[in-house]
Amino acid sequence: MPEIKAIEWEAGKLKLIDQTALPLETIYIELESYSEVIDAIRRMKVRGAPAIGVAAAYAMAMAARDANTTDKATFLEALRVASHRIGQARPTAVNITWGVERMLRLAKQIDDVGQAPDLLLEEAHRIQREDEEANRRIGTEGKGLIPNGGSVLTHCNTGALATAGYGTALGVIRASWEEGNRFQVFATETRPFLQGARLTAWELVQLGIPATLVVDSSVGLLMSRGEVGCAIVGADRIAANGDVANKIGTYQVAVLAKENHVPFYVAAPTSTIDLTLSAGDQIPIEERHPDEVATLGSIRTAAPGIGIRNPAFDITPHTYIAGIITEEGIVKAPYVENLAKAVTQGQGGVRA
Amino acid sequence: MPEIKAIEWEAGKLKLIDQTALPLETIYIELESYSEVIDAIRRMKVRGAPAIGVAAAYAMAMAARDANTTDKATFLEALRVASHRIGQARPTAVNITWGVERMLRLAKQIDDVGQAPDLLLEEAHRIQREDEEANRRIGTEGKGLIPNGGSVLTHCNTGALATAGYGTALGVIRASWEEGNRFQVFATETRPFLQGARLTAWELVQLGIPATLVVDSSVGLLMSRGEVGCAIVGADRIAANGDVANKIGTYQVAVLAKENHVPFYVAAPTSTIDLTLSAGDQIPIEERHPDEVATLGSIRTAAPGIGIRNPAFDITPHTYIAGIITEEGIVKAPYVENLAKAVTQGQGGVRA
Repeated sequence: MPEIKAIEWEAGKLKLIDQTALPLETIYIELESYSEVIDAIRRMKVRGAPAIGVAAAYAMAMAARDANTTDKATFLEALRVASHRIGQARPTAVNITWGVERMLRLAKQIDDVGQAPDLLLEEAHRIQREDEEANRRIGTEGKGLIPNGGSVLTHCNTGALATAGYGTALGVIRASWEEGNRFQVFATETRPFLQGARLTAWELVQLGIPATLVVDSSVGLLMSRGEVGCAIVGADRIAANGDVANKIGTYQVAVLAKENHVPFYVAAPTSTIDLTLSAGDQIPIEERHPDEVATLGSIRTAAPGIGIRNPAFDITPHTYIAGIITEEGIVKAPYVENLAKAVTQGQGGVRA
Repeated sequence: MPEIKAIEWEAGKLKLIDQTALPLETIYIELESYSEVIDAIRRMKVRGAPAIGVAAAYAMAMAARDANTTDKATFLEALRVASHRIGQARPTAVNITWGVERMLRLAKQIDDVGQAPDLLLEEAHRIQREDEEANRRIGTEGKGLIPNGGSVLTHCNTGALATAGYGTALGVIRASWEEGNRFQVFATETRPFLQGARLTAWELVQLGIPATLVVDSSVGLLMSRGEVGCAIVGADRIAANGDVANKIGTYQVAVLAKENHVPFYVAAPTSTIDLTLSAGDQIPIEERHPDEVATLGSIRTAAPGIGIRNPAFDITPHTYIAGIITEEGIVKAPYVENLAKAVTQGQGGVRA
């Protein structure tokens, strides 16, 4: 089976699988400017915290290429404008900020502006490569957590589509499977965007890992019946104290896991850790358009006239988390100390 | 505003609002035989535990009318066959069994088989009337639980559409609103069938009660932020110990409510209480067709090849329930004693 590549740089363009069209159609889109990348991130044609971090880095490389100046101050100003716009594409995942700032830091160090576009494109490639490598290490670190003959539940999509490749939580599942363990996977459909039904299910079918799709409301029933051995999810931002922002519904999975004595893990590269925020309540929660809840495809399902709220993420306090699986190992409580250590050891993380 | 009538007997036919077509279209269907009623219950054209109890009673009246015999033994045998078939239409809600057995009990007491069809039709009318009356009393009993200026969250649909009229949990919300209290209602969309988005939202808009629709996964976020004052849901079957079978996702709402110190109530007529079952784990959980999860309207959303499970209900242990609002008052722990008392006082309930 060929590896799924959600993001590829090809002939000066950023080539993405349009994740709004999956699984019915596999459509590739080619983006030519950083503004087009911002639009694709906003519309969730590319999504998943690590993947949009990588896309943001390429967007910065495009901004550098298109800056069209040899003056360093003008060049840096153009990049600053771009970084600001890209950084606002989606507020919750810190990986965009992380990717953009890493690119900006490098740009400042380059003396010859003429060389900057090439150097920044190389850096974007490096970020992409490092993310895939981090994911594979996350898989190696976490694969022992899924017992042979058991079962694991995951929420949203955290696979190759959500990252530079391989996946975070889904990468752990994949690594355990590739190790020869056999187990059952439960994937929640993940309303309203259906990342589970459309994307995780699609990846699991391609990987040949037997899996069962359930509605988000089924998690409690499955756990209360003892059908779930552990839960592993991804993260969009991890505060210094270990509180985790992730797809709406994650907190519910964590509470149900605690209530039913099911270990609950988070899998994320250190680039998702934001040491500038001391706790989860400081993480901005994106509210998306009501139509994502009110309509299914082109069909309106919600009764006309009803109010709608569509928060896209929630916060899981660190007290619910048995461990955070990073490329630097499984970080456990006390999180303040151990997350800071992981960020220092790893390449990633936004430092306080 | 005219009252919503989901079930009406008209010119020898059972007239139902097709709840699979709402809210886009208000289509009435007319059923002429008990087999057609079974089909409508199975396809969820009529749904909601009290409503399918009433529909089942009318189905028995139709079976009596169509038995076409003057011999009592033959007549009762025909009704027994019908009761068995109707009773199997859906397994979780006890109201079908309750309605069918009440009709069968009366049939056995009738000496003149020629009069039986009229007497049984009268009994079905009585069951329908009693259910609406019970709902209005549930509303009166429960309306003080929603504090003025606060907020209430409900799951699935428990309004006029789910009952003979007025509603159970939604009836409590309506009664509180009619009392002059002002508050915010959160309605969960209730995957996979979208009873919240399609039916509850439709009823709330018609009642003029301001309400906000959210995905099922948002309950935890709202509660953790202190935005939910109390939760009230319906029930499909209540065991003797107070364990409640209700729409999939109810257990999750209850666990999240406990975790966030939000009182969690169940509203149901005593006809939903099944004293023959000592605990919730004895209640059969219906598994419905995978297509309800895999498709939205005519569009396939789930990746082809993925396994799917579609349990339609879950069990909320009585320890999570602050009170069960019945037409005989708010029943609290110890449930074994107090539910038995409510069943004896009320008309309803399946007795051990």
